[in-house]
Amino acid sequence: MTKKHDQSLSLSRRSLLGGATALGAASVLNSASAGEVNPDNLPPNVPEWTPYLGEGVDANPYGLPSEFESHVVRRNVEWLTASAESSVNFTPLHELDGIVTPNGLCFERHHGGVPEVNPTDFRLMINGLVDRQLIFTLDDLRRFPQTNRFYFLECAANGGMEWRGAQLNGCQYTFGMVHNVQYTGVRLSDICREVGVKPSAKWVLAEGGDSAGMTRSIPIEKILDDCMVAYAMNGEALRPEQGYPARLVVPGWEGNMWVKWLRRLEFGDMPYMAREETSKYTDLMKDGNARMFTWVMDAKSVVTSPCPEKAINNRGVQLLKGIAWSGRGKIKRVDVSLDAGRNWQTAELHGPVLEKSLARFTMPFEWNGEEMLIQSRAIDETGYIQPTIQALQAERGVNSIYHNNAIATWMVNKDGSVDNVRLG
Amino acid sequence: MTKKHDQSLSLSRRSLLGGATALGAASVLNSASAGEVNPDNLPPNVPEWTPYLGEGVDANPYGLPSEFESHVVRRNVEWLTASAESSVNFTPLHELDGIVTPNGLCFERHHGGVPEVNPTDFRLMINGLVDRQLIFTLDDLRRFPQTNRFYFLECAANGGMEWRGAQLNGCQYTFGMVHNVQYTGVRLSDICREVGVKPSAKWVLAEGGDSAGMTRSIPIEKILDDCMVAYAMNGEALRPEQGYPARLVVPGWEGNMWVKWLRRLEFGDMPYMAREETSKYTDLMKDGNARMFTWVMDAKSVVTSPCPEKAINNRGVQLLKGIAWSGRGKIKRVDVSLDAGRNWQTAELHGPVLEKSLARFTMPFEWNGEEMLIQSRAIDETGYIQPTIQALQAERGVNSIYHNNAIATWMVNKDGSVDNVRLG
Repeated sequence: MTKKHDQSLSLSRRSLLGGATALGAASVLNSASAGEVNPDNLPPNVPEWTPYLGEGVDANPYGLPSEFESHVVRRNVEWLTASAESSVNFTPLHELDGIVTPNGLCFERHHGGVPEVNPTDFRLMINGLVDRQLIFTLDDLRRFPQTNRFYFLECAANGGMEWRGAQLNGCQYTFGMVHNVQYTGVRLSDICREVGVKPSAKWVLAEGGDSAGMTRSIPIEKILDDCMVAYAMNGEALRPEQGYPARLVVPGWEGNMWVKWLRRLEFGDMPYMAREETSKYTDLMKDGNARMFTWVMDAKSVVTSPCPEKAINNRGVQLLKGIAWSGRGKIKRVDVSLDAGRNWQTAELHGPVLEKSLARFTMPFEWNGEEMLIQSRAIDETGYIQPTIQALQAERGVNSIYHNNAIATWMVNKDGSVDNVRLG
Repeated sequence: MTKKHDQSLSLSRRSLLGGATALGAASVLNSASAGEVNPDNLPPNVPEWTPYLGEGVDANPYGLPSEFESHVVRRNVEWLTASAESSVNFTPLHELDGIVTPNGLCFERHHGGVPEVNPTDFRLMINGLVDRQLIFTLDDLRRFPQTNRFYFLECAANGGMEWRGAQLNGCQYTFGMVHNVQYTGVRLSDICREVGVKPSAKWVLAEGGDSAGMTRSIPIEKILDDCMVAYAMNGEALRPEQGYPARLVVPGWEGNMWVKWLRRLEFGDMPYMAREETSKYTDLMKDGNARMFTWVMDAKSVVTSPCPEKAINNRGVQLLKGIAWSGRGKIKRVDVSLDAGRNWQTAELHGPVLEKSLARFTMPFEWNGEEMLIQSRAIDETGYIQPTIQALQAERGVNSIYHNNAIATWMVNKDGSVDNVRLG
């Protein structure tokens, strides 16, 4: 895999009056692919863009990013993408800030294409062990009481290629199957009240309207706790690849259960043992047995800058950035090590720090050209500490592709480039 | 102005077993422009989209909304838009949920076009009453300690057409110059520490790199309190029309001060009396004098559904939705009246409720075909209550176009259509 150094920026800094520089020694060091600075655009000159009116925004009633940001896109890995029918792409975490993932950059995995559901014809059917089997239109769902919550969504296979070693030299590819948006929709508990769930109902089968007929079983306790049927993300309608016009939201649990293009919820008295919870989304252990129903995504974190796609291109003070999340509640603390876990410092968390939602952390550090081994570890409010890969392997071996929440290591080389490495 | 009933949805609801309906009596009432329901797509049939794989998402590395949502766009008002050089568009608030405004739908006002600033050549110059006059690159700004905060941005002229009566029959046009995103950037207090602000510095001139050379004076207390230089919004780089690559964020204060394409901050000992704070962005009072430096946006709210663009198209239980905000802190409460302010009910606030950030509120209500006069009023944590237009007019007359935070009234007609009306 080619390492990317997209559009690094010039680092020259000149004081107007003296030789003062801020934030430590700022050397001039452009990476090879950085654009050349045009001195005519620098102060005190009037830059070339100032007299130019630019494109009228009226031409873009739905706005798009700057052309200078065209490298900030979802990407896929050719050998991982089996076919157009069953594909996956990755969020460019290394280019993002804050806790909101823009809808256009939310990673997406589908098992049977992306159906174009006509919202007028959309129906959600509720059947099985309920008093009133009902069919809801989208407008019906919008008339229910509403809930608005930020949640992360992570694919169970995020980092699945890394069980046996450091294989993919990038933050986007090893961690990019996670995103975080504010969902708007209906609490399942409200829908349950409406249809009257029978006491014998213990499980719910969620069925998608895609050609894969995606189906998963969810225990009734989770359904009543915090599941929702969402019709909006980050304020606007769900995106087509995220289940437009309605999807299941299963906070803190593996993404595959968040059934998209939701068409049916069936209440039953046992799990349905669907393909996606038997042959897939089970964890093959050392002894050949498989763990099933491993739904919760345990606490995890990653340093998103520096990282393989974000080299350090100047000495002095740097801002380390990253994200942390836990399927069991709020992130309580994130520790960062610059020496492969021997010494840890506590990073600053940026709010709002919410339950089952990405938290942003940052930590300033100084780089003077030496090698560094950068790690981060998340601690959630239950006291759970993100484990090492060795601890995970000792328990589960290396056969599974799911639920790898191990601490990763980025190695900073003497030239400032960064590699994904496996220690020990 | 034409009222819009974009893509209303069918409201039929059929139970599978009995005649049960949920949420009160659900009558079948399609608005004229609603799509016809295709019975072949309804349960128990397999809808036409299920066997179809759809367009591969790989074709959209930066994703876009569904084609069925093409009506959810920013719009402008032809007679308000003087020219391409000086234009404005409005956020479709009536189509949105939650507290995040998607970047593509954030309203935008510019006074001299939208410059295309090359991020490699971008410089922020700090001069005037400081110990070290410095010039920062974008990369320099990114190495500073970071802050991540949700803030609303409202144009001082939002609702400015309504001082003399109900003129524009739409929520988008009367309230749509407000948006809410999470900003990432550098605290001005950190930049001040870096340059060493002299004790004599009392004001800061912020200057934009657009052809209007937008300039505003900001008191040093506000600069040190919570202002920031932002380089990201909702996780990704600022959009071009929002000041790419860096803008000023002046939380809770009128949008015009949030200088875009920021190129210079000059520290001085008095206000600069720039055009945009003398001839413009002053409030012409009854007696011919003008209020100046009316920076804070006081508490305000609006019901975004129902509203002129969101008619009620069935009887029974409805979900009223709206947004509230205050430039002085957190929203404490939102009251809703269905009878022109005679009786008030407290709406439910949806979190996170943050300082100087939009808050979402909802309230279920029943509609049985009668006329209604819907209002909302916001109360912020300082105890300030959103005023009536009569109270505002008594104090300030009707000459100003700025700082209209009056309670609006939507009239629900017997056919479910909704109009913007002025009472009394």
